[in-house]
Amino acid sequence: MRPIIAITPGEPAGIGPDILIDLAQQDLQAKIVCIADPDLMRSRAEKLGQPLNIHSINNTSDIPPHQAGELYVFPVRLKTQAKAGVLDSANAAYVLACLDTAVKLIQHHQAHALVTGPVHKGIINDAGIAFTGHTEYLAELTSATPVMMLATDKLRVALATTHLPLKEVSQAITADSLRRVIQILHHDLQTYFGINTPRILVCGLNPHAGESGHLGREEIDVIDPVLQQLRTEGMDLTGPLPADTLFTPKYLDQADAVLAMFHDQGLPVLKYSGFGRAINITLGLPIIRTSVDHGTALELAGTGNCASDSLRSALNLAIELGKNNLK
Amino acid sequence: MRPIIAITPGEPAGIGPDILIDLAQQDLQAKIVCIADPDLMRSRAEKLGQPLNIHSINNTSDIPPHQAGELYVFPVRLKTQAKAGVLDSANAAYVLACLDTAVKLIQHHQAHALVTGPVHKGIINDAGIAFTGHTEYLAELTSATPVMMLATDKLRVALATTHLPLKEVSQAITADSLRRVIQILHHDLQTYFGINTPRILVCGLNPHAGESGHLGREEIDVIDPVLQQLRTEGMDLTGPLPADTLFTPKYLDQADAVLAMFHDQGLPVLKYSGFGRAINITLGLPIIRTSVDHGTALELAGTGNCASDSLRSALNLAIELGKNNLK
Repeated sequence: MRPIIAITPGEPAGIGPDILIDLAQQDLQAKIVCIADPDLMRSRAEKLGQPLNIHSINNTSDIPPHQAGELYVFPVRLKTQAKAGVLDSANAAYVLACLDTAVKLIQHHQAHALVTGPVHKGIINDAGIAFTGHTEYLAELTSATPVMMLATDKLRVALATTHLPLKEVSQAITADSLRRVIQILHHDLQTYFGINTPRILVCGLNPHAGESGHLGREEIDVIDPVLQQLRTEGMDLTGPLPADTLFTPKYLDQADAVLAMFHDQGLPVLKYSGFGRAINITLGLPIIRTSVDHGTALELAGTGNCASDSLRSALNLAIELGKNNLK
Repeated sequence: MRPIIAITPGEPAGIGPDILIDLAQQDLQAKIVCIADPDLMRSRAEKLGQPLNIHSINNTSDIPPHQAGELYVFPVRLKTQAKAGVLDSANAAYVLACLDTAVKLIQHHQAHALVTGPVHKGIINDAGIAFTGHTEYLAELTSATPVMMLATDKLRVALATTHLPLKEVSQAITADSLRRVIQILHHDLQTYFGINTPRILVCGLNPHAGESGHLGREEIDVIDPVLQQLRTEGMDLTGPLPADTLFTPKYLDQADAVLAMFHDQGLPVLKYSGFGRAINITLGLPIIRTSVDHGTALELAGTGNCASDSLRSALNLAIELGKNNLK
């Protein structure tokens, strides 16, 4: 049986609809339900000159395995017509309503995983809705603690902290927060990725992982005690390791995932390894969610000049992980 | 004419002598002067079963182009016999005396560049000599501001700050310090690397380069004003860029070097790109210095089980840069 993947194209003025229309021309090993305004998808496909048969549905059990040129849409209506490249705060609520609908479908077992296209944080906030990102929004919808992980075909990197000013990172890493992140990472590598005993490499916070306390004490005071405790619970954790030593074959060849302590410790190398084709996965949620790793690229919307590679990668991973939700 | 390269094998109990002995068996496009105890080099070569003719010299003008199996040694005597794998604080002063001698040779134009083998910080400090590393020691010897740069065949990454606890990084980056680092980087890329108009990519400090101040203000308050000022002086500077965007082909293909704001922002990706074969170059000194990118590996000393690849890479770069010192 093929999993049903819900896809939210995101910001209607951006390239989200375009890349989904492009993807729909391909063979895909899943059933796809697009959560969007069918008229938007139809008119954007016409603008792009791409053939697309739109089927509006209200029940995903009607969806057959994907066929090139067909798209099944679960309708959520725009508040006002969307113009490619032009943001309109009137449609901010629409963007979030699509997410709400997608989550409900998955919670009601009408879909098995979610793939999100790019949204525009600024326009949602301009509409008077506090919004810091998909990850946080979905976590709130599902009352969960999210853990951000990025993956390429070569590497998986999860983050102990995400979007914080650098100088706030040290104080944000407590024994409790770190333990929770590692537990979620470990659990989800088992549950969604099917890795029985995940081998996790953990970075130190400071250069050279603190060099025995000479370059910072967080490794000694916080990180090491947490790792020691979790090892007694059976986890395979290596570290805290100097980040510039960890990202070499000697360690990576023996590991399933890396936990970086902060954004710029882990993501530059991750994105370098994938030549910009990284997939963002939110762990810790009761639903599987993967995402493109690019923005709305407003200037490219409706032009036909944008690539759907990142969406394809995010979809492929969602299919793989979603299969575990079929069991 | 071939440049004369001074090589200090570093800690006598470590693998420094071993890898130089191994390197000496190869064809090298330079004149080589080893600054060490000739007896140490002779006995280690015997232990390793490697043929080596040692020539003690007191004037580098006597040195011919390197021939495989020959080694010209400028003698500095050990205080006590060195045993492979066993540190002895009695020889700490010897390690530094070798460096002092090498720097003098270069300052007196008897050599054109320095390549350093690994030293052991702990044993030097145990001997009662405050020592934080080659870079700082050489900077003090030559009254200079050092800038650390690492290079592979794919990337060059310089650092605005080096060995600091993470939580001290933000305050360590001032307009003055940042300006000085960029000036040195720019100058040395011109002088030593022969790049007329170096194209430098500059990382932000915070995730997403602060995202217009939402994730930190150092980009707005410090980094951007410095870059703007230096651009008016004719420098080709791009940034501050999000570090995870910067390290992708779109930017890297158009650049000669990257300036990272701190150690773990720049070095994990650098070392990943070089599969552990990075070369460390100290900019800002009146002498050219390159270095191996590994430690003393005491357990491997005298065994014949260590590779001289890193020393070879450091030497090759020193030869390339040293040629500019011949002019």
